[in-house]
This record gives sequence, C-alpha cells and structure tokens, in this order.
Amino acid sequence: MEFTAQQIASFIGGRVEGNEQAKVHTFAKIEEGKEGAITFLSNPKYTHFIYETKASVVLINDDVELEKPVSATLIRVPNAYECVAKLMQMYAASLPKKKGIDPLAFVSKTAEIAEDVYIGPFCYVGDGVRIGEGSMIYPHVTIYDGCQIGKNVTIHAGSVIGADGFGFAPNENGYDKIPQMGIVVIEDDVEIGANTCVDRSTMGQTIIHKGVKLDNLIQVAHNCEIGENTVMSAQVGMAGSTKIGAWCMVGGQAGFSGHITIADKTFIGAQSGVISNTKGNGEQLIGAPAIDPKVFFKAQAVMKRLPDMYKELGALRKEIEELKKQHKA
Amino acid sequence: MEFTAQQIASFIGGRVEGNEQAKVHTFAKIEEGKEGAITFLSNPKYTHFIYETKASVVLINDDVELEKPVSATLIRVPNAYECVAKLMQMYAASLPKKKGIDPLAFVSKTAEIAEDVYIGPFCYVGDGVRIGEGSMIYPHVTIYDGCQIGKNVTIHAGSVIGADGFGFAPNENGYDKIPQMGIVVIEDDVEIGANTCVDRSTMGQTIIHKGVKLDNLIQVAHNCEIGENTVMSAQVGMAGSTKIGAWCMVGGQAGFSGHITIADKTFIGAQSGVISNTKGNGEQLIGAPAIDPKVFFKAQAVMKRLPDMYKELGALRKEIEELKKQHKA
Amino acid sequence: MEFTAQQIASFIGGRVEGNEQAKVHTFAKIEEGKEGAITFLSNPKYTHFIYETKASVVLINDDVELEKPVSATLIRVPNAYECVAKLMQMYAASLPKKKGIDPLAFVSKTAEIAEDVYIGPFCYVGDGVRIGEGSMIYPHVTIYDGCQIGKNVTIHAGSVIGADGFGFAPNENGYDKIPQMGIVVIEDDVEIGANTCVDRSTMGQTIIHKGVKLDNLIQVAHNCEIGENTVMSAQVGMAGSTKIGAWCMVGGQAGFSGHITIADKTFIGAQSGVISNTKGNGEQLIGAPAIDPKVFFKAQAVMKRLPDMYKELGALRKEIEELKKQHKA
Repeated sequence: MEFTAQQIASFIGGRVEGNEQAKVHTFAKIEEGKEGAITFLSNPKYTHFIYETKASVVLINDDVELEKPVSATLIRVPNAYECVAKLMQMYAASLPKKKGIDPLAFVSKTAEIAEDVYIGPFCYVGDGVRIGEGSMIYPHVTIYDGCQIGKNVTIHAGSVIGADGFGFAPNENGYDKIPQMGIVVIEDDVEIGANTCVDRSTMGQTIIHKGVKLDNLIQVAHNCEIGENTVMSAQVGMAGSTKIGAWCMVGGQAGFSGHITIADKTFIGAQSGVISNTKGNGEQLIGAPAIDPKVFFKAQAVMKRLPDMYKELGALRKEIEELKKQHKA
Repeated sequence: MEFTAQQIASFIGGRVEGNEQAKVHTFAKIEEGKEGAITFLSNPKYTHFIYETKASVVLINDDVELEKPVSATLIRVPNAYECVAKLMQMYAASLPKKKGIDPLAFVSKTAEIAEDVYIGPFCYVGDGVRIGEGSMIYPHVTIYDGCQIGKNVTIHAGSVIGADGFGFAPNENGYDKIPQMGIVVIEDDVEIGANTCVDRSTMGQTIIHKGVKLDNLIQVAHNCEIGENTVMSAQVGMAGSTKIGAWCMVGGQAGFSGHITIADKTFIGAQSGVISNTKGNGEQLIGAPAIDPKVFFKAQAVMKRLPDMYKELGALRKEIEELKKQHKA
Repeated sequence: MEFTAQQIASFIGGRVEGNEQAKVHTFAKIEEGKEGAITFLSNPKYTHFIYETKASVVLINDDVELEKPVSATLIRVPNAYECVAKLMQMYAASLPKKKGIDPLAFVSKTAEIAEDVYIGPFCYVGDGVRIGEGSMIYPHVTIYDGCQIGKNVTIHAGSVIGADGFGFAPNENGYDKIPQMGIVVIEDDVEIGANTCVDRSTMGQTIIHKGVKLDNLIQVAHNCEIGENTVMSAQVGMAGSTKIGAWCMVGGQAGFSGHITIADKTFIGAQSGVISNTKGNGEQLIGAPAIDPKVFFKAQAVMKRLPDMYKELGALRKEIEELKKQHKA
C-alpha cells in the first residue's frame, strides 16, 4: 500500500508543508529514514535528525520551529507521536492476525477457549483454564490449571501464569510446602510481556485487573492484586499479597515488599524499593526505601560530598574546642 | 468432601467457639470468605476482616482477643497459620498427582528417569540427565545434558537447568568462549520456581543442596553452591563461584558478587548487594553494599536530612569564623 | 583421551615441575581435584587449595611462589587461566557438536536457515526469520517473525527474540497499543544466555552488534542498540531506545534509563542505575544514580556514620550558640 502526504494529512487532520504528492509505504525512525518512509519528530532530543533524515514525510508538532529548511515533506499536527501511533494502528489492523489453536500447542480437553483466540506452538493450557475472545497467547506460554484469562488479553512468549506461589513453613528438618490452591485471574485487555511470571494464590485469586500492562521478566507473587490500567516496566518484582492501585506507573526493576497497599495513580521510579503502604493518590516515590523524588535527588546530590562533610565536621569540632579553651583562659 | 468445625477441631487439636456443626468444603482468604469456606487469621493486619468475613469457620490463635462478636464459628489453636497449612497439605495430598512422562516431552534415550516422576509437555531432558523418584518437572523446563536432579524435586515451568555459565576470555578481536564442561547437581527436596536459571559449572558442579527453595526468575551462575534449606525470593542473582551457606534467607532482587562465601543462617534483605564474605552465622545484612540493618535504616532515615545538614555545616563554619575573628579582635 | 603433563606442557608452552609422565583425562576445580584430572590456580584466593588438591596436574602462573611442597605435578605458564581455557577449547572442539533442525522444533516455511545451524526441540522460528551459518539455537527459544540472526550466534534455552516492545499511549479508558513494527537484528558471534528478552523495535531495528555477550534473564527493550563486544551480566535491564557503546562491561542487575547513550569501553558496576549519557570512553560508574566508583565507595563508607554526624551537628550548634552568648555577655 502506498499513500501520499496529502492523503495522510487528510486522514489525521494535519497540514502539509512541502510536496503534497510525496509517497510513503513504510515507517522508519527519524535517524534511519529512507525514501518512501514516513517518520515523526516528538522527542526534542532528536530534533537535529530532521535536517538530515532521508524519510519522505515527517509528522511534526505544530509548535516546533525549525532553524533550517528540510528536504522531507512535513505534516504539521498537534501531537506527532499520537498521530504516528494512529497510523501504525491502522496499518497493523490491516495486516492478517494470527488465529486459532496451533496444532503444536497443548490445550487440555477441559479448557474453554473462546472464539478468535490465538494459541501459538508449544503453549501449555492446563485443565479448567478459560481464555476469552480475541486473546493472543504467543508460543511457549504456560497457563497452569484453573487460571482464567479474559478477553483481548495478549501474553508474550515464555510467560508463566499460575505456577505455585512461594510458600513454605519451616520444620526441624527443612520445610513443609504450603499448597497453593488458588488461581490467577487476568481480566480483559491486559498485555503481559515475555518471560513474566504471575503466581497462583495460596487460596482465592491473584488478580490482574482490566487494562493492566506488564512488561517482560516481571514477578507477581501469590495473592497480589494489580489495579486497572496500571503499567509496569520490565523486571519489577512484587512480593506476596501486595495490592497496587489503578493507573499506577512502575519503573523497571522496582520492588515491592509483601502485604502492602499502593494507592491509585502512584508513580514509582525505576529500581525503587517500596516497603510500606503509600499515603494517597498521585504520590511519587523513588529510592530504596522509596521516598519523595525531590528529597531523593537532593540527598543523592549531597551524597558525593559526604566524605568532605565528615572531615569538615571533625575540623569544626576541633576549632570549637579551641575556642572554648580560649574562653576559659 | 465436607467437614464440620468439630471434626476439624479434633483433627488439629483445636477448641470450637460457636456452632460445632458448621460445615466447610473449601478454603478462602479471610477477606473473601464465603459460606462453606474455612479461613484463618494469623497476620494482625487483617484482624478487622474477622468481623465481616462470610466464611463459615475461622482458625484463630488462642491469644487473640476479639472486641466484638463474630458470625463465623471459631476454632482456637496455638498457631492458626500452621494449622491451615496442615489442613491444606492434607487436602492437597488427597488430590490426584500428575505423573508420568508426557508424550509431548523430549527425553533423551540416555537420560535415566526414576519411578513416579512427572515430566510435563514440552520439557527437554538432555543426554545423560538423571531425575530421582517423585520429582515433578512442569512444562517447558529445559535440563541440559548431564545434569543431575535428586528425589522429590519440583521445577516449575520455563526454568533452565545447566545452560552454559557466562565465561569469555577477551582477545584482540572479541572473546574466546571458555567451554562450560561441568554440570548442575540439584539434590533432594529442592523446589525451583518458574523461569529460574541455574548455569552449569566451568568444571565440576554447580550445586543446589538438599531442601533449598528458589523462587521465580532467579539467576544462579556457574560454579555456585547453595547450602541446605536456604530460601531465596524471586529475582535474586548470584555471580559465579559464590557459596551460600545452609538455612540462609535471601530477599527478592538481592545480588551477590562472585567468589564470596556467605555463612550459614545469614539473613539478606531484599535488593541488597553483598560484595564480600560474611562474618558469622546468624548475621543480618541489608543495603548495597550490604550492612547491618539497624545501621542501614538509621542512616536511611538521616539521608532525607542530608541537604539540610549540608547547609547547617556551612552555617556553622561561617559562625565559627566570625567567633574566631571576634576573639582576635 | 589421555595426555601426559609433558604433552600438555609442550602444547601450551609450559614448564613441568614434578612427574612429566603424570596422566590426565579430565578437568576439575582445584578444590575438587581427583586423580587423572588437570586443574589450575589463577585466583590467589584459592592458593591454599594447591597443597591439598588431589588433581594430578595443576597449571600455575610462573610468578606464584609456593611455601610448601605439593603432591601434584605443576605446569608453569605465564597465564594459567588462559592456558586452561585454551585446553578446554581444544577439548570442546573435539566433542561432537549438535547440528540440524530438530524435528520437534517449529520453523516457518518462510524462514531462511543457513547450513550447520542447530535448532533444538521446541524452538519457535517465525515467518521471514533468517539464521546464519553455524548458529546454535537451544531448546525453547522463540524468534518472532522477521528477526535476523547472524553467523555463529548462540542463544540459550528460553530466550525470546523479537517480542513486542512495551509501547502504549494512554486514552480516557485505558491504553492504545503502539504497534511494534520493527525487528531485532543480532549480528555475528553474539552469545545470549537463558531466558533473556530482546524486544523488537517500534520501527526499524533493535540491534545487538557483533561479538556481544549477554548473560541470562536480561531485558533489552525496543529500539536499543548494543555495541560490538559489549558484555552484560545477568538480570541487566535496558529501557527503550538506549544505545550502549562497544567493549563496555555491565555488572549484574544494573539498569539503564531510556533514550540515553553510553560511550565505548564504559564499565558499569553491578546494580547500578544509569540515568544519563556518559561523558567519555573508559569511564567507570557505580551506584544509583551511577557515579564515580571512588566517590561512591567513599560516600558509602561514611553513610554508616550519618546518624552520628547528625547528632554531632546538633551538638556543635548548641556549643556555638553557647559561645556566642558568652561573647555577648
């Protein structure tokens, strides 16, 4: 398929600057633009690339002022990132979608698979599992017995849903295993990345609510709950029974202690360690233990001077003792 | 199966408060209790749920004093958590256990698989591997050539046992691979979570001793050794040749440098970075680099005041200089 | 195969001390040496083992002075570690190598697989994938549609190449998925550990350049680029669009923010958090946020004294106020 700058501009409601007949048939990053590609400029860090890009068309925000002429045709829009996303979604929707249960998958006879579901090669779908309409289960996903997957859920390769939670009671010689008798419930519109693990609960359910997006290599322990539309970057870890609210954003490699509750719309920085309940909606936290980002970054800036501060303290002590002596004298 | 409160109390040696004939047939979390469910109260954080739970029976510690009447039948016991675990173990033991080598697994002809072993679909069991009696290997586990798995070992989906350790020697143009010619030995009664990696040693063995419990997404590098009954939470990472003692507990996302030795019964907090040998049994460590938890938490509490301390230091310096001037005058 | 100390010494250019006819047929760690094994002493930490080892032959650096006689035959060389690596490489090269596409693998009809490639059981190789000569793809690897793998690449079990990058644009009710239309390119001589994830780019390519070595459980997000011969330990995480230079070394569990650039030959300590571009080649960084290691370790050493410093500051303040009062008086 090929489109002109003019056709695209009409579709997304933009304004063409340059050759309205410039033709594109593919997408490219601005620094890798080629003839026939459409690209976009959104992050100001990349502005310098617009003068060199070989892309035929560039989506660009209305308010960006350029210092030099550019060879590409521009399409001015209020939000270039949103527009390119819209175009890509349109393009992606036009591509054939993988469907059906691959003959190389294992699906238990007692599993209930809705229509329009894709289950890739080497997936394991255990007894009593339910998978809702339109869900995409990529190769090598394991879904243990009894777990429930909603509609339009995407799970990428290698993720494991419903393995036993980590529960052991010490005895004299070792440990007794606490049976993990609950399940995992994944609600509609959730996307889970590759090689992520969501453990089944001890009893009841580990719940991933509607619209949650989990990146790769994340650990969700037994009895956890993640609220609607919360987003977690890769390698985050949640200990058992922790509840995270709705619309939270969690940076990569952050960790949560067990049995705590995080309010809605909390923003947790990468590599943070959250060890207690959070106070209210909209809070921002970073560090380990996690604190207010302003306090954290100020303290980190001073950290480097700690050794000098230590020396200065010692010097002040001496000088004060000297002053005190002189006083007495 | 259905049991009365009285039957359960007799079995676990508890004392009924309320309706001895209350019947239960399933387990539930206290906040999700339904008619016919037995639950328990152990964590004092959850005490308020006992007044609202719809569970028919609640196991509760002898020493918990309730402020209001509850509708559920109580069974008083010395340790509610242990008792519910015991009941769940009994129930789990009554369920059919997965057994046998699934026809969709790949098991090398030269592997030796003992009796009563379960090997799930899409498992890969390489040449010369041995797996002892009663072990459960969930779907998608890879066991590389030559690795030895003991009795009653459980390995959850997606874990990789015996991939090459990470060894490369730099040369002018890149790296020479150091062949990883050893194996992994996993002793009896070990449980390994999902998507965990235990690398084969360069020579000799990477050893996971008897009774060790590893959670999900853990990295055990080549030549490591983990002592009996040590427990590690998810996403812990051990660099090469490190030896951890027996009965240690390691919090999630903690990391260990290579070539160090950790004494028995060491307690390592979540997200710690342990970079040197530990001193003696029973030590507690947290932070990166890991130090005494008391010191760590005190220092963290003061951290927030660092910028103020820095300003105060500057102020004191000025005032002292002023005092010194006045003295000379 | 069996070799004498004399034969090995001639091969690697070493000098025998002891029985030139001592025979070896296997490799062992120095602390686990047995008759018939060759071992080596390289790390000074392990020197005490040389007096007890039962290995028949020990490779040892020319400059190590021993305090007591040893029973093993020694082979003196300039670099024992390099020599044992060379011997192991020779031995490994003599072993049969896995080859061919296993009948239990899924390989798309539109994939192009070069000669001498190994693709293990349960691998998934999608449409349009290309894999170059001599590459080894261990069991359970998933390679999504369109990804390109070079020559002599090794990918260990469970790794996922080309899953969707993590891109979502918030709307009123949740998120719109940003289609991930690019691919992953893995150049020649790369080795990737087990359960590692390399995401496909939004557009264009996520690139792992020639000779890169990635350990297990690593996250490489969409649009990232890793320069030639860079080495990353386990559990490292890179956020989107970050570019790491050539010949860098990254310690375990380190993390990188998105959209930053790391210069060549940068050394990043374990568990570091790198949040901005680095200044120049050869820089060392550690901590979160990452700083100069000397500054980091000095500051960490003083950290423990922070609470005392805080008290001392308060004490000095009081004493100065006292002195000031006396002055006025």
